[in-house]
Amino acid sequence: MTSDVPGEYPDGAPGAGAAGDRDALWRIMATRRDHRHFRPDPVPRETVERLLSVFELAPSVGLSQPWHVTVITDPALKREVRESFADVRERERERFSGGRRELYDSLTLEAIETAPVGLVVSFVPPDGATLGTTSMPAALEYSVVCAIAHLWLAVTAEGLGMGWVSLVDPERVAATVPVPEGARPLAYLCIGTPARQLAEPLLHTVGWKRRQNVDVTWR
Amino acid sequence: MTSDVPGEYPDGAPGAGAAGDRDALWRIMATRRDHRHFRPDPVPRETVERLLSVFELAPSVGLSQPWHVTVITDPALKREVRESFADVRERERERFSGGRRELYDSLTLEAIETAPVGLVVSFVPPDGATLGTTSMPAALEYSVVCAIAHLWLAVTAEGLGMGWVSLVDPERVAATVPVPEGARPLAYLCIGTPARQLAEPLLHTVGWKRRQNVDVTWR
Repeated sequence: MTSDVPGEYPDGAPGAGAAGDRDALWRIMATRRDHRHFRPDPVPRETVERLLSVFELAPSVGLSQPWHVTVITDPALKREVRESFADVRERERERFSGGRRELYDSLTLEAIETAPVGLVVSFVPPDGATLGTTSMPAALEYSVVCAIAHLWLAVTAEGLGMGWVSLVDPERVAATVPVPEGARPLAYLCIGTPARQLAEPLLHTVGWKRRQNVDVTWR
Repeated sequence: MTSDVPGEYPDGAPGAGAAGDRDALWRIMATRRDHRHFRPDPVPRETVERLLSVFELAPSVGLSQPWHVTVITDPALKREVRESFADVRERERERFSGGRRELYDSLTLEAIETAPVGLVVSFVPPDGATLGTTSMPAALEYSVVCAIAHLWLAVTAEGLGMGWVSLVDPERVAATVPVPEGARPLAYLCIGTPARQLAEPLLHTVGWKRRQNVDVTWR
């Protein structure tokens, strides 16, 4: 199959529909976990840089690429981010009661200080109008999330692990790190060599919540 | 490596760090496009079902799995969704002027009626408190986006293509489809066999926006 459309693969997309590639992807998706236990082994800077090139391939609405990444290895910065986590966790536990709160208190929910690498992924609102955002402006933030979701798989395929810590105060992280003017932290990610390779989500294993089939309607 | 931790892979995660799997993932990420041109070939129901099992592997904050999927094959429904797109596009073009508006008008931004399969992926707010959402409640919607981002890769690996149409009015889609009580459409996705395999994002190729390197700060 050859093509004269500008920018088209002359012989079709490499690997498209190959069973080997498909099986690899499903293996990676199935073994991807939200890690909270890491070994202290450092992650080489060139590995982090290679992983971050996922952002150059990731989808974004109107090709807006509305993101910025801060790589955190400074222990003092990690400690400050972890203080924000501790405050938020203390507030969150109040939202559960009885046995649920006891179970909540027993869970490890982050590895901010023990993971060798932390990433602050920020949303950077573009100047002017962005194609594709008129009825769903949140598509801009969703673009950042798509990139993070692809990064998660790339980290897994590297034999490393990633944990997304959503229990931090974005404004406090913005002031601590700091992030560029106008940028808003959307995720704090821990990356390193996993100390455990769980076959199921931990929250499923401990009985906090069961993994379910997706509910689908056909029309 | 053997393990006694409940739920842990006894011999490590299958495929973790294997160069073949890693290369496959990067190939899939590099060839993934936001497709707007499909062939009429139908997508078998069992293929759609298999692809949707991505939702069972995808990450979600607090294992909330806050999603619902409606699969659309009915041409009349597609036509109604496309009418919503046409209205939003008409509004959006006003946000650009001069040569930008001319270029905007020349772009194909959806394939709602021509793609054999449409998906409405909805956010379903969970009852009660969800672990991990106290400082960043949007993490719930972000979970839906993570699943969509993984689905995008699975569709690509299948030799199919996906396009995310963000230019529809979520309330109108909710009323048209309809979606379950309390659910809110977060994405309309077109799936089918791509008619073109572009090597770069179309918006890059036509000069609407340039693909850029990610901006990274080290701390």
